Amino acid sequence: MVKGIKITTIGGGSSYTPELVEGFIKHYDELPVRELWLVDIEAGKEKLEIVGNLAKRMIEKAGLPIEVHLTLDRRAALENADFVTTQFRVGLLEARAKDERIPMKYGVLGQETNGPGGLFKGLRTIPVILDICKDMEELCPNAWLINFTNPAGMVTEAVLRYSNIKKVVGLCNVPIGMEMGIAKLLDVDHSRIKIDFAGLNHMVYGLDVYVDGESVKDKVIELLTDPNNTSFVKNVKGLGWEPSFIRSLNLLTCPYHNYYYKTKDMIEKDIKKAKEEGTRAEVVLKLEKELFELYKDPNLAIKPPQLEERGGAYYSEAAVRLITSIYTDKGDIQPVNTQNNGAIASIPNDSAVEVSCVITKEGPKPIVIGDLPIAVRGLVQQIKSFERIAAEAAVTGDYDTAVLALTINPLTPSDTIAREIVDEMLEAHKEHLPQFFPKKEAVKA
Amino acid sequence: MVKGIKITTIGGGSSYTPELVEGFIKHYDELPVRELWLVDIEAGKEKLEIVGNLAKRMIEKAGLPIEVHLTLDRRAALENADFVTTQFRVGLLEARAKDERIPMKYGVLGQETNGPGGLFKGLRTIPVILDICKDMEELCPNAWLINFTNPAGMVTEAVLRYSNIKKVVGLCNVPIGMEMGIAKLLDVDHSRIKIDFAGLNHMVYGLDVYVDGESVKDKVIELLTDPNNTSFVKNVKGLGWEPSFIRSLNLLTCPYHNYYYKTKDMIEKDIKKAKEEGTRAEVVLKLEKELFELYKDPNLAIKPPQLEERGGAYYSEAAVRLITSIYTDKGDIQPVNTQNNGAIASIPNDSAVEVSCVITKEGPKPIVIGDLPIAVRGLVQQIKSFERIAAEAAVTGDYDTAVLALTINPLTPSDTIAREIVDEMLEAHKEHLPQFFPKKEAVKA
Amino acid sequence: MVKGIKITTIGGGSSYTPELVEGFIKHYDELPVRELWLVDIEAGKEKLEIVGNLAKRMIEKAGLPIEVHLTLDRRAALENADFVTTQFRVGLLEARAKDERIPMKYGVLGQETNGPGGLFKGLRTIPVILDICKDMEELCPNAWLINFTNPAGMVTEAVLRYSNIKKVVGLCNVPIGMEMGIAKLLDVDHSRIKIDFAGLNHMVYGLDVYVDGESVKDKVIELLTDPNNTSFVKNVKGLGWEPSFIRSLNLLTCPYHNYYYKTKDMIEKDIKKAKEEGTRAEVVLKLEKELFELYKDPNLAIKPPQLEERGGAYYSEAAVRLITSIYTDKGDIQPVNTQNNGAIASIPNDSAVEVSCVITKEGPKPIVIGDLPIAVRGLVQQIKSFERIAAEAAVTGDYDTAVLALTINPLTPSDTIAREIVDEMLEAHKEHLPQFFPKKEAVKA
Amino acid sequence: MVKGIKITTIGGGSSYTPELVEGFIKHYDELPVRELWLVDIEAGKEKLEIVGNLAKRMIEKAGLPIEVHLTLDRRAALENADFVTTQFRVGLLEARAKDERIPMKYGVLGQETNGPGGLFKGLRTIPVILDICKDMEELCPNAWLINFTNPAGMVTEAVLRYSNIKKVVGLCNVPIGMEMGIAKLLDVDHSRIKIDFAGLNHMVYGLDVYVDGESVKDKVIELLTDPNNTSFVKNVKGLGWEPSFIRSLNLLTCPYHNYYYKTKDMIEKDIKKAKEEGTRAEVVLKLEKELFELYKDPNLAIKPPQLEERGGAYYSEAAVRLITSIYTDKGDIQPVNTQNNGAIASIPNDSAVEVSCVITKEGPKPIVIGDLPIAVRGLVQQIKSFERIAAEAAVTGDYDTAVLALTINPLTPSDTIAREIVDEMLEAHKEHLPQFFPKKEAVKA
Repeated sequence: MVKGIKITTIGGGSSYTPELVEGFIKHYDELPVRELWLVDIEAGKEKLEIVGNLAKRMIEKAGLPIEVHLTLDRRAALENADFVTTQFRVGLLEARAKDERIPMKYGVLGQETNGPGGLFKGLRTIPVILDICKDMEELCPNAWLINFTNPAGMVTEAVLRYSNIKKVVGLCNVPIGMEMGIAKLLDVDHSRIKIDFAGLNHMVYGLDVYVDGESVKDKVIELLTDPNNTSFVKNVKGLGWEPSFIRSLNLLTCPYHNYYYKTKDMIEKDIKKAKEEGTRAEVVLKLEKELFELYKDPNLAIKPPQLEERGGAYYSEAAVRLITSIYTDKGDIQPVNTQNNGAIASIPNDSAVEVSCVITKEGPKPIVIGDLPIAVRGLVQQIKSFERIAAEAAVTGDYDTAVLALTINPLTPSDTIAREIVDEMLEAHKEHLPQFFPKKEAVKA
Repeated sequence: MVKGIKITTIGGGSSYTPELVEGFIKHYDELPVRELWLVDIEAGKEKLEIVGNLAKRMIEKAGLPIEVHLTLDRRAALENADFVTTQFRVGLLEARAKDERIPMKYGVLGQETNGPGGLFKGLRTIPVILDICKDMEELCPNAWLINFTNPAGMVTEAVLRYSNIKKVVGLCNVPIGMEMGIAKLLDVDHSRIKIDFAGLNHMVYGLDVYVDGESVKDKVIELLTDPNNTSFVKNVKGLGWEPSFIRSLNLLTCPYHNYYYKTKDMIEKDIKKAKEEGTRAEVVLKLEKELFELYKDPNLAIKPPQLEERGGAYYSEAAVRLITSIYTDKGDIQPVNTQNNGAIASIPNDSAVEVSCVITKEGPKPIVIGDLPIAVRGLVQQIKSFERIAAEAAVTGDYDTAVLALTINPLTPSDTIAREIVDEMLEAHKEHLPQFFPKKEAVKA
Repeated sequence: MVKGIKITTIGGGSSYTPELVEGFIKHYDELPVRELWLVDIEAGKEKLEIVGNLAKRMIEKAGLPIEVHLTLDRRAALENADFVTTQFRVGLLEARAKDERIPMKYGVLGQETNGPGGLFKGLRTIPVILDICKDMEELCPNAWLINFTNPAGMVTEAVLRYSNIKKVVGLCNVPIGMEMGIAKLLDVDHSRIKIDFAGLNHMVYGLDVYVDGESVKDKVIELLTDPNNTSFVKNVKGLGWEPSFIRSLNLLTCPYHNYYYKTKDMIEKDIKKAKEEGTRAEVVLKLEKELFELYKDPNLAIKPPQLEERGGAYYSEAAVRLITSIYTDKGDIQPVNTQNNGAIASIPNDSAVEVSCVITKEGPKPIVIGDLPIAVRGLVQQIKSFERIAAEAAVTGDYDTAVLALTINPLTPSDTIAREIVDEMLEAHKEHLPQFFPKKEAVKA
Repeated sequence: MVKGIKITTIGGGSSYTPELVEGFIKHYDELPVRELWLVDIEAGKEKLEIVGNLAKRMIEKAGLPIEVHLTLDRRAALENADFVTTQFRVGLLEARAKDERIPMKYGVLGQETNGPGGLFKGLRTIPVILDICKDMEELCPNAWLINFTNPAGMVTEAVLRYSNIKKVVGLCNVPIGMEMGIAKLLDVDHSRIKIDFAGLNHMVYGLDVYVDGESVKDKVIELLTDPNNTSFVKNVKGLGWEPSFIRSLNLLTCPYHNYYYKTKDMIEKDIKKAKEEGTRAEVVLKLEKELFELYKDPNLAIKPPQLEERGGAYYSEAAVRLITSIYTDKGDIQPVNTQNNGAIASIPNDSAVEVSCVITKEGPKPIVIGDLPIAVRGLVQQIKSFERIAAEAAVTGDYDTAVLALTINPLTPSDTIAREIVDEMLEAHKEHLPQFFPKKEAVKA
């Protein structure tokens, strides 16, 4: 039997795939991928062909013996996989556009991890991911599930809580983006920066930050109070923290914290932007069309630079370094979403957290944090509560539970608005929420 | 030496005092008060005289040997006290009016325990209460401090954390109001109702409710989904929960939960009301004037019924039953603010919580709760974080800490608005916040 | 239908039964027992008749309308019971004698809750109690199971962990004996003594002790350092603590603590006693014979005073006050074995602990303790670990698990001796341990 | 200023020093030591000269620019140190001999970390180490304190609890010895073995063990049930576990576990050995004399192989890899004694534990364990309680506290024997226990 790794990517037709392929090419020496299976559904067949052929050209150009398989047969793709990565989007960008547009009518943010957008993306995604887990139990019980699909924290929580797959890691490019941002801020190479991360997906804080092992947090906080320096991730522009707030918070924030500490400004900004240029999904839809046009070019055999505007900066970096460290038992430290197990006090042990971990062949082992600073303990728990109850609603299809999840979300202005949004969004996403409409014929993603 | 109890009431000139006196009269058999010392400051002298004389007439009418002492000398009043009750208001109702009016300009709620109102009331009150604690250490080290002054949770937290007085209980009429409300809802006598309370002051939940020891929670939840039945405390009118929300929450809420689960409606309602009839402080100012006119009547020797509109319903009931149970080592169960010590998991052990306790001569001993339901765990911790950081700001006089406290409050729309409100309110309350203006001559309450 | 309570006593032929009956008679006003079902197995039929007829005569003499039913049909007895009390002994006193004699050969204590004796009593008892629980689920799902059968902590742990019966309380006369002992020590009436109990069954400490609500712990510790004053329970005579030890421990101990803090003396004493007068079981066997002779007397219609030497002092008191408080929703405080739920930090929440509880119609609600003093935290956890692993061995019938349980018991001198004792005792108790001998025909108690 | 590291070794005259020097020589490339200060007290002057001169010859032979300073002036040695290592022995081996001989008279083990031996070594050592900490605060506040002095767990606990030095690590060669033992058992190179360590010093368990990242625990447990394979550390010979015990324990044990799970055998073996060849201290005294004779040889310029029989196998390895990883911010994983901070649930957060940590320039960061397996949770807490109370006794000089510490130690047969041993040992070690004899002139080590 040929030695080497089998990687299966669910949602392989995604515009992100060339990122991932580029990563596998770059790191082939450490991570000898033998087979890459790109899987998609019927509706994504055309994109799968386009992006899959680009992937083949990239690998051919690199002169590497990686086989690329394109398929709509998920079970065939999963069989004996070593790593399963998920980057699918139930309902495609069209569903995301609804996640954004509908809440705005009620003056509420519809971002895809936060608030109603995140709730409904979770409700659509979790049943599919649990189905994949069932297949994995049967077809590749020793594989690692590396989940990129948002809301990544809620999805990881659901897998830990409702599936038998324990080898699951949720991955996000926000922490690596924060490292890159800090590196740029301090004008040092990324490799010299280390951050102690703790929190949840899209709600992660940097407890301390080091250059060459020496803490530089005080210096960074000082620089961060300068409103021109707070933008780390291109598609969530920083608005500039109040110096008094960030000094006393004394933590590194992630871009998504703007939604919680600048709620009013963010929603106003998003509504304005949606009017002027369309919502993020609508913008991305356009971008993607252009990208796929580029991908079609039979002479293209590299990741086109335009992909970087798509928003997944460092995505390939994060994915490949995680898979490589598991495969090689490297023992380096990376921030991932994994079971808490006591790393963060006051978050339940069985819940998913995003935290700096040692990455070994046995998966991520969290470094102990103790407790989060008192100022953020409540907010982090509140988002965790939202994630847990949303995951429960996704599994049970219980209407009241969905209303509860949205009502306790700190971005929701009232229980009544929560109920109204749930009503309208359930209707809008009906096709992808069979668990809420049990009498109708279920339509699965 | 004559046997009997010495009670010292700080802020004795309050319009509430006749409530308290009525309670002492009613319960004299169990709680033989020998001396009642009503203390106030120079600015409250006139009111102290009026209300103190009414108290004397009430006691005389009852034919009881309780001595009433009226004094501006706090230290004399504290000497050898058995119980010290606090019901003072630094800056009087005029300060409360500012707490309400200023935040409204920024579209933010200015209630006296929640949001900026609560923060600034705490900043004014905590230094005074810690001063009283220092006097108590010296003059009545074995006395119990029974605190009614709002924000009662924040004040109790501050006493536990920053003073040497460990015999402190924070008391509120909200839980007893919830019992009364449920009794009315079910049309049974109050004495037959028992609620398992857990949470924080003005953020307390009923985990279960019993009639004659049998749980009736399901029935109550059913009745509570009827919008006409949610109003328990007169001065915070319920708006009616969404049935889907309250069914899945599956807890009894308190009236203040409206601020968190119906934020938008509440602030709109309060702004409208402030325009039409004035803020609550302004309304109460008027009510108080009328009350003191009544109190002056030398023929009045009972608590006038108009006092009940003032908002302190069951205040006397709660106070007297607590003091009596401590004095008599009764061992009954009452909801009070005390040190958590593990009763509510995930709230720090050394923090104040509002929880059902066995009341003994040693004070309140909390009944263990385990953990709060997942849906409310985050919000409760968030308010606890707000209380702790606000208490820290009150003690240190640190500007950044005050901004942090307000920013993390879930009612605050952004860090910038937090900073702007802090700026304006610090200026407005300057006279009562010497810790923030150290160069000026300190003016103490 | 006639109102009143149905009580079912498993092991009704026990010599203790007259105690219990006396209690029901005394407290009939508060606790109107309508039916008392005494159940036993075929082997106990004669004793059941004798003691059952005495019970009938006692009730007749008292002139109360309590029906006494004697039966070997456990299921009939359980049907619609309100309270099920268990006081049975699988293998009778003959088995206990083996529990005591065999370990002695290895120089190890064979007491019926501690060490190998407790382990094997648990192995015999737990399967039977879990059988009873299954019957209760079906026949009296709302009944309370009040377990007196030793090892009561291990049995309660097993019921909580391995059955669906959640309404279970483990009860012991040690705490009430400690109260009585302290009352005698201080020469005050028992009703004036209150102790804050925390720990495990037969490993319970008094954290504080009060007379009329005032702590008298210092005084008691002083008196306890007097070697003549440490004996609280007749059949476990105190040996007198080292004053330096008990002063720094600063807790009230129970008689069983002698086994852990005076291991060497206790085992020597027990071996000597066994030689001179027989083991405790052998002594009790003789006592019981005499008791049953007395019970047979058709003129006897009271509990004979000789029963008090049997060792179950205050047993009836403890049982009846617990049942009464549950029945009447009294809300008084009693020490019982119940689910920890956070009352004692560092003991798992789902484990059984012995702790002061408020007793309501909903059962016992523990008063929060925080953490045990550092000096005893390890020992208590060690016994809890023993109980849990022993319970697991009882359920699984796994040999290695039984050896592990005994090896980690602090009274066991080595893993090899543990293994040897397990081997010999498994053989000796074969008949009552079907789970360990699955190929043979199971013989159930 | 010349770049490089200053290392200060307290107790530099120890026979172990050549080990350490050999390590610094081997790892000079990664760890460029510029100055090595060997400090000792007047009584150790001669040994310091001998071993110090050997160190100089070793370094000269290696051709490295490391300056060796020999001094009795501790303060000079500490000034600006980067790392302070402690390997001193208050009272020398003569005191250790008493620690061993006296308890034996009472049938109790007198090992230098366990039981009375460990207690008294702690009582003598802790005041000295706290003195060193005070000097460090003043003279080298940024230095790391690497403590090898036994009882290393108790000493680390004392430093964390009673000094201001937070940069402290306790180090032991037991874990590395376990790794080496497992490597030998499996016949693989040490570098391929990884163990998840958790517990306390000399009470550490291997929760899992890996070869090349794959768990081999099942295989190891199988091999360990073979009595010929359990000896890991030369001077504590394994006695062979009962297969049934170790299978159900399902953990790797350390050699010191024999004292707890084979108490009887170990004490008998130690008493026999003491009779035949002398106690360990007496044997080592003889060994040391021979070693120092060897060290004197001016032609010796390497660590003599006879040192390995002394018992400190892998000592240099452990020390140098720790210091190197801190110095180079390596981020590898090593088992050390550090503050728990939640890594091991149910051990207090502020206590010292021995646990696998990521080693960075900021020191060790524990990898989260969750909770210890139920079977060992109690024993580990019991030893932790012993360590904490012993540390308290060392600081306060309180007699009762010392008796309490020894009584709760699981190796102590009774409170009376504890008291008798404390009495005799206090007298025997009087000279080195000034805190217990305040009236006499204090004699400090």
